Amino acid sequence: MTEAFDAVEVIRRKRDGERLAPEQIDWVIDAYTRGVVAEEQMSALAMAVFLNGMERGEIARWTRAMIASGERLDFSPILGPGGKVATADKHSTGGVGDKITLPLAPLVAVYGVAVPQLSGRGLGHTGGTLDKLESIPGWRAELSHAEVLEMLGGIGAVICAAGAGLAPADKKLYALRDVTATVESIPLIASSIMSKKIAEGTDSLVLDVKVGSGAFMKDEERARELARVMVELGEEAGVRTSALLTEMSVPLGASVGNAIEVEESVEVLAGGGPGDVVELTVALAREMLAASGIGEDPAEALADGRAMDVYRRMIRAQGGNPDAALPTARESHQVLAPSDGVLSRLDALAVGTASWRLGAGRARKEDAVQAGAGVRLHAKPGDRVARGQPLMTLLTDTPERFPRAVEALEEGFTVTEGDSADVERRLILDRLSAE
Amino acid sequence: MTEAFDAVEVIRRKRDGERLAPEQIDWVIDAYTRGVVAEEQMSALAMAVFLNGMERGEIARWTRAMIASGERLDFSPILGPGGKVATADKHSTGGVGDKITLPLAPLVAVYGVAVPQLSGRGLGHTGGTLDKLESIPGWRAELSHAEVLEMLGGIGAVICAAGAGLAPADKKLYALRDVTATVESIPLIASSIMSKKIAEGTDSLVLDVKVGSGAFMKDEERARELARVMVELGEEAGVRTSALLTEMSVPLGASVGNAIEVEESVEVLAGGGPGDVVELTVALAREMLAASGIGEDPAEALADGRAMDVYRRMIRAQGGNPDAALPTARESHQVLAPSDGVLSRLDALAVGTASWRLGAGRARKEDAVQAGAGVRLHAKPGDRVARGQPLMTLLTDTPERFPRAVEALEEGFTVTEGDSADVERRLILDRLSAE
Repeated sequence: MTEAFDAVEVIRRKRDGERLAPEQIDWVIDAYTRGVVAEEQMSALAMAVFLNGMERGEIARWTRAMIASGERLDFSPILGPGGKVATADKHSTGGVGDKITLPLAPLVAVYGVAVPQLSGRGLGHTGGTLDKLESIPGWRAELSHAEVLEMLGGIGAVICAAGAGLAPADKKLYALRDVTATVESIPLIASSIMSKKIAEGTDSLVLDVKVGSGAFMKDEERARELARVMVELGEEAGVRTSALLTEMSVPLGASVGNAIEVEESVEVLAGGGPGDVVELTVALAREMLAASGIGEDPAEALADGRAMDVYRRMIRAQGGNPDAALPTARESHQVLAPSDGVLSRLDALAVGTASWRLGAGRARKEDAVQAGAGVRLHAKPGDRVARGQPLMTLLTDTPERFPRAVEALEEGFTVTEGDSADVERRLILDRLSAE
Repeated sequence: MTEAFDAVEVIRRKRDGERLAPEQIDWVIDAYTRGVVAEEQMSALAMAVFLNGMERGEIARWTRAMIASGERLDFSPILGPGGKVATADKHSTGGVGDKITLPLAPLVAVYGVAVPQLSGRGLGHTGGTLDKLESIPGWRAELSHAEVLEMLGGIGAVICAAGAGLAPADKKLYALRDVTATVESIPLIASSIMSKKIAEGTDSLVLDVKVGSGAFMKDEERARELARVMVELGEEAGVRTSALLTEMSVPLGASVGNAIEVEESVEVLAGGGPGDVVELTVALAREMLAASGIGEDPAEALADGRAMDVYRRMIRAQGGNPDAALPTARESHQVLAPSDGVLSRLDALAVGTASWRLGAGRARKEDAVQAGAGVRLHAKPGDRVARGQPLMTLLTDTPERFPRAVEALEEGFTVTEGDSADVERRLILDRLSAE
């Protein structure tokens, strides 16, 4: 087969800071998927994109080409008790202690909106939703398309593994970016996320774009730009899209790990749980409901147990036992407050890295995670602490991991004299939408 | 084995515009040679170097690391009739019709300086010295180190293939840059050339840095910068180094190809040949002699046949028959002047590309070249031409190649009204040395 373009020519164009032609983008993504453009050529192109950027039109075309590399799902046959059902999806750019999908999906389903959460496993210091749910005995992540449709129609929510058929170009490119230092690029992140979400075929999408030390985007302006690009990409593809910019310098909730995050999610579904997890769950649910034309207050369905009912049915439908005891770590180690005062800083990246090193996360795709590993937080910024009081409990099955986890936390928190009122946290920084 | 660094960290550092630490450079080149740093990682790093540059100190360290990846040659045991002999080498950055090595090496040897020309094959529109010499029946490019030493001691000059042991990191990286659009980077070009030349162990080196359409460097300022960096790298490594900046917008001489360039070289060795080829040969010879402390005028040894004698001995020692008829192309096609006037422009890149397409060059490393293919130039810029007069003869064994060669030449020359005096060519633009 004669190729329409030459990879070297395409790389050179982006290298020289020029705009890629639409046909060049289509070709390079397709040829990369077919293996005609080699990994080393795509990595050179990715670095050129990283350093020279892409314009909005290029990003949109790049996203479309990645969607076209695979199959598209169709949720239009979903029928609920009252007829055709709207679908709403949420995507988080990844943070520490971010278990929001677990209470959120059943909560939104309560209001008759179907929530297909095709999720991934974690890599590095941010956890993966599937890793968390897999700590529930019997629960399985892999479902057929028919099973997904059945759950969406019958229960209204499903959290499962994304099939290999969605945007295979993105799968290849994502793995490549990870080993070539080309991850933190707005055009590449935006097109990666949105190609999968658009191919999934949801009616609406809410993006939770994290900002801060524990997020990809450390800086609010860049996070805002990423959110803006993704909202545009979604709207152009006919998906009603909005984004919340949320704070990720401090871990979400009081648990970072796998089983302990499921436990905390169940507390939230039982009407309790940490305030920040509840606040963000409700805020995202409100966005998703609004996108489906529903003005009700989702806080109610947390308080009255309806969200919990959907959650339990959802877990059972995937083989999980919501009443089974969750795995616990065999070993624990406490990190104590070094002095009296106020916990004025608790760094999300440090806690995420500690949890990862304890075995809750993986360094390579093929690694297994420990269900019981992680970090329990006994104080959050603004809390008064006394010298010698436990600030965190580190959990693992393999105690030889403690020293490196402790090391990760060494510069990760600060106890200062002063007033707890000085420590302020705004969780939701901004909202972006097409209007 | 535990690795001292992480490839992603090294790439990220250069991506972010920072200076690489000396130990990082040593590690990344060594780990790439060992296959621990993958091709796609090195290509991302090469693109980051391309776009963010390297400082002088980084380039010097990178060069040293590439030298350390392989063996170093030692020409110190070379004894001529008068005792220990100085060695002088020449390197050209590559041009169209550049056959200078063929007359130059024997010419310099006449004066008692040993000339080891470890050369390569051509890729793309610039020809390779070995490809040219291989058109001589019987001549072989591959010699053992002992044979090289014997020729240098006995004849004083050798042109042969560089062994695989010299700077293997450069060999891998060079092939990678070719397919990832990371060729035209001053730090990467300078370190590539100088690592091989320094590993070769010559006492002195003269660089012929080409400028213009037919060269890597289209622009004089960038060519000057490349020359400056290479002179510094050579001097720092104890090799007396100078550079001539020479014009490469017009092909050198009247022949571009393989056998026809050997033919033209023999004309120069016989005291004739095109003026520009003679001028550059003599200028480079003068540099090489001066670096060895010899002030004689090399033009004499071209005129009196002494250089020809050395050339014939050199060819014979490698199995070649200097009296054998050279291969000729089976088919020819003439390009005619479209009007009366002066040939005011003859573009080196266009002629080089035409010659390549006729079969004189290769698109892939593994391709064979046609010995007889190429372009004979019947007029050079400044010459008066009459409408219908042949400007060039295209030569190939495979006439289906003519249309694409003619196409390459379509915008490649201009015949204008006016005076031939308006067309001026300065061949040697500048000289750079450590002083």
